[in-house]
Amino acid sequence: MRAIDWVAGPRIGHIRLIDQTRLPGSLVELEIHSVDQLVDAIRRLAVRGAPALGVAGAMGVALAVGTMPESSARQAIERLRAARPTAVNLAAAVDRTLEAFRTGGPGDALATALRMRDDDIAACRSMARRGVELLGELCPGRARLTMMTICNTGMLAAVEHGTALGVVEQLHVDGRLDRALVCETRPLLQGARLTAWELDRMGAPFDVLVDSAAASTLARGGVDAVVVGADRIAANGDTANKIGTFALSLAAAHAGVPFLVVAPETTVDPGTPTGSHIPIEDRGAAEVCSFHGVRTTPDGATAINPAFDVTPADLITAIVTDRRIVRPPDPPGAVPVGAAVPGIGALDEEEA
Amino acid sequence: MRAIDWVAGPRIGHIRLIDQTRLPGSLVELEIHSVDQLVDAIRRLAVRGAPALGVAGAMGVALAVGTMPESSARQAIERLRAARPTAVNLAAAVDRTLEAFRTGGPGDALATALRMRDDDIAACRSMARRGVELLGELCPGRARLTMMTICNTGMLAAVEHGTALGVVEQLHVDGRLDRALVCETRPLLQGARLTAWELDRMGAPFDVLVDSAAASTLARGGVDAVVVGADRIAANGDTANKIGTFALSLAAAHAGVPFLVVAPETTVDPGTPTGSHIPIEDRGAAEVCSFHGVRTTPDGATAINPAFDVTPADLITAIVTDRRIVRPPDPPGAVPVGAAVPGIGALDEEEA
Repeated sequence: MRAIDWVAGPRIGHIRLIDQTRLPGSLVELEIHSVDQLVDAIRRLAVRGAPALGVAGAMGVALAVGTMPESSARQAIERLRAARPTAVNLAAAVDRTLEAFRTGGPGDALATALRMRDDDIAACRSMARRGVELLGELCPGRARLTMMTICNTGMLAAVEHGTALGVVEQLHVDGRLDRALVCETRPLLQGARLTAWELDRMGAPFDVLVDSAAASTLARGGVDAVVVGADRIAANGDTANKIGTFALSLAAAHAGVPFLVVAPETTVDPGTPTGSHIPIEDRGAAEVCSFHGVRTTPDGATAINPAFDVTPADLITAIVTDRRIVRPPDPPGAVPVGAAVPGIGALDEEEA
Repeated sequence: MRAIDWVAGPRIGHIRLIDQTRLPGSLVELEIHSVDQLVDAIRRLAVRGAPALGVAGAMGVALAVGTMPESSARQAIERLRAARPTAVNLAAAVDRTLEAFRTGGPGDALATALRMRDDDIAACRSMARRGVELLGELCPGRARLTMMTICNTGMLAAVEHGTALGVVEQLHVDGRLDRALVCETRPLLQGARLTAWELDRMGAPFDVLVDSAAASTLARGGVDAVVVGADRIAANGDTANKIGTFALSLAAAHAGVPFLVVAPETTVDPGTPTGSHIPIEDRGAAEVCSFHGVRTTPDGATAINPAFDVTPADLITAIVTDRRIVRPPDPPGAVPVGAAVPGIGALDEEEA
């Protein structure tokens, strides 16, 4: 199963993706034939997760340039590019696919989108192997690990395998997962709904907990490592991810538990110097003030609802990408691709 | 309005309390005529909050010894005493009222319960004044304060005024509250449901936020202080309170924001040496895995659900009680009542 894929068709084809708003109750796939449909799916989080948003953006451009006149395609692509601001992958993938179209036409745009899909699958496999190796080093003598995570960073957030949850899955496949502890991830419960669904499907043992219980659970001991994804990694290593990640990093640091960010190299944005330059989306009060149509606050109550927060690099033990392991304070953005990473060794080109 | 009160009656009388499970949708009062009814109300959190649980426990003993034969009263009181384990106030109030009964009969038991109700009202007024004074000292030059809080520590958690929320209310009355930021407090949303309802009633400006957004909101600046209540304060100052309080204390420390615990002297338990000796209630998976009857996790998912956590004394700027201000590392439990508190001055007996 893939969270998002391209379906070949008589004219150009279309996008098929799992509607994540229906999980865990129903597994429903959406057939996306227009950019407007795709923008709607992105905005209401039917498709989400930085890597999946990148693939969606690329496929959306292929769809636009393959099916629309140029002027309306340009406007549609602009709406697509701006559908969500925090994850760098969406805008970057749109730009890259548009560049392919400009130099090679619609066929090259589609080829680029399909390559990004395939690259994501390979990148997730690479991150999983690399993350498991690093955990062996960080947790010596532990045969089976208890891992804590937040939000959803599994196949649903990517294509076929996940980023941070891909590491947990690999541990499980290797017989080295003791238990996963899943922060429910308010307000939209991507942990309770999506990560729990993925762990259940793979037969991995897990418990859900409210986000605010993570700190004392870490302090009590028994958690070997925290693994999280990323929506954007600034050049200095500051990392934007789902709201709650920063609190988790503070609790992990207080408890002395390793805190790993696992994300593809495409999530590193050398153009963003530090975390304070990352735009943080506020998704409005409705997600906080009601649940499944039931109001949880008094009528007229207002809410602040930042969808992401920034974890400063100094609270991150290591950033695991598909090509390298960065250990702050070494900044990921200061290292040109292909160069040696101080204290880490050369980039692992053959795995990229 | 009072969250809990005694209603005089022909025989002995009964307890009247606001059913907090119905807020913010409906304001419904329950008439409690038996200890079994009261135990049920406590277990399902119709009445909650450490001070209110103390008053409920005392009134429950008065009800038992005034209406039941001694042997069944004894059993009922044991069930009442054990209805919730973390807040010291419940068991302590039961013991104190039972002692009054043993020495003076049912009339003395009821008089003790009514005195505890009145003492709570006076204690909350004293804490509010003291807390506002302390904030003036901790936030010099700030005419109006933005205050963050978690759970519900208002009149609903006490009798007529709150503990930590009583301080916020006093700021509002004094025209010195800029805004209250209310952590929703998963899983049962006491912040979103109850604190928001109280702030709305008092006309105070507020925003709700998910618990995991507190850390980045503090880090961004603009919050002047965090105020929380307590379910039990150990002799060394470690404080058990609603799950999420510890995470909030870590974020406040990281942001350099004062973190105040506001609780009556009755919540200080010299018999509990440190936080690790405080029993933490786990309330089971159902509260986490479903909401208003809608399942949020896959069928069969399990959860850990600690209702409280422990904030170590070194993360607390000050503990404000109705009689003194304790600044860790000075331990509250090491100071006998009436003695001078090192560095703080004598206990303020006339306000007790």
